[in-house]
Amino acid sequence: MPGQQPSAAILIIGNEILSGRTQDVNVSFLAKELSVLGIPVREVRVVPDVEGEIIAAVNHLRQRYGYLFTTGGIGPTHDDITSQCIAKAFGRKLILHPAANKLLLDYYGAEKYNAARQRMAMTPEDAELVDNPVSLAPGYQVENVFVLAGVPKIMQAMFQSLKPRLVGGPPLLSASVTGFVGEGQIAQGLEEVQHRFPALDIGSYPFQQADGRHGTQLVVRGTDPKALALARDEIARLVEGLGEKPRIEG
Amino acid sequence: MPGQQPSAAILIIGNEILSGRTQDVNVSFLAKELSVLGIPVREVRVVPDVEGEIIAAVNHLRQRYGYLFTTGGIGPTHDDITSQCIAKAFGRKLILHPAANKLLLDYYGAEKYNAARQRMAMTPEDAELVDNPVSLAPGYQVENVFVLAGVPKIMQAMFQSLKPRLVGGPPLLSASVTGFVGEGQIAQGLEEVQHRFPALDIGSYPFQQADGRHGTQLVVRGTDPKALALARDEIARLVEGLGEKPRIEG
Repeated sequence: MPGQQPSAAILIIGNEILSGRTQDVNVSFLAKELSVLGIPVREVRVVPDVEGEIIAAVNHLRQRYGYLFTTGGIGPTHDDITSQCIAKAFGRKLILHPAANKLLLDYYGAEKYNAARQRMAMTPEDAELVDNPVSLAPGYQVENVFVLAGVPKIMQAMFQSLKPRLVGGPPLLSASVTGFVGEGQIAQGLEEVQHRFPALDIGSYPFQQADGRHGTQLVVRGTDPKALALARDEIARLVEGLGEKPRIEG
Repeated sequence: MPGQQPSAAILIIGNEILSGRTQDVNVSFLAKELSVLGIPVREVRVVPDVEGEIIAAVNHLRQRYGYLFTTGGIGPTHDDITSQCIAKAFGRKLILHPAANKLLLDYYGAEKYNAARQRMAMTPEDAELVDNPVSLAPGYQVENVFVLAGVPKIMQAMFQSLKPRLVGGPPLLSASVTGFVGEGQIAQGLEEVQHRFPALDIGSYPFQQADGRHGTQLVVRGTDPKALALARDEIARLVEGLGEKPRIEG
């Protein structure tokens, strides 16, 4: 992958993913959105609601990648410990963020704005809020780390709010060739295409249709549209060479 | 969490998850199955098809947790590099596994058993095969690491094959209480329940129904059925105290 390309990591925080109770869908949403912006996701981690684990993962990932997106753990309950962990990871104080506090106080009114709800206005010092048009309580940014909600609908809305702050690279384009050929039949030809186009990333994904028919989807990804089209067409010819009709997308 | 409990990590290998092309479902399957066996999943990582990344993640996770399950990267194409990485991570030679080789040779016949397909019979030295009743090419085990396919149907079948080899702890039980209460209303009471039952793991998950009604699901997890039932009932009383009818499961 080119060194110039920005990069991102995702940190999913929450016991509910590790227990299998909740099927994560935040990774695929963020990965697709970030690809379009030219910010490929290079690593994902899922950690439990344990302070030491969260802090260690945040510090590793924020230093290694251009952006880090965390999801989960910013609600009002005892298992929502993300903000205190982000504060410790950056060595900053955890404070009642003035703008977030005002937002929530105005919404709940003094009587219902209890200690638990005030937790949702706590951020590390000097955090920049990320709007939450769905359920009000904001996410926030500290340097290159974006701290987002775990609930997919809220996370997605927050992502739309923060998008203008991201600096991307050339968008990651993709094309695919699908055919009723076995991976083992096309593998050698495919490897030769990969060698001729080292800047592209060529993946091979076998599938089986409901009617039992097997096939393979070959996916080409990269930032150079000309190389992408050339590699795609070479792969289509490989499928034809095996006596099958290729279906081309992208 | 009790120190006696076995533990597991999952390593998802594949650019297709990081690009958002493929929605991972292997984590939730493995997490649920392992919970029942009393082997909680403590960490998940997703890494690209890059040798150095895979080796580093394998070595970190296999040393830190009781079991490591990898998915993806054991097919016949150039982007399937998991086996060479596992071999390097353990400092073992990558060999044509005699039993896997015989299995695939018998199936394909000498003429169709090309170099690409032979890759599916390569394992680190002294690996113990894991049966694949779906598509034949086996997974394998090296010490505490299980190397499985990425395709969910195949991975799931492999998991059933290897299950008898796992040594679990007391099964992780769970119960839940659902009510039309806000997280911010119940948070304080919930935290007090958590303090009274430190060996249990109590999670709070807000939801919104299609009709717009908001509520919270409170999930209690742990290995002690008596404590679980007590905590569950205390939480149900919290919901009642807020004027709502709790729905109890488990």
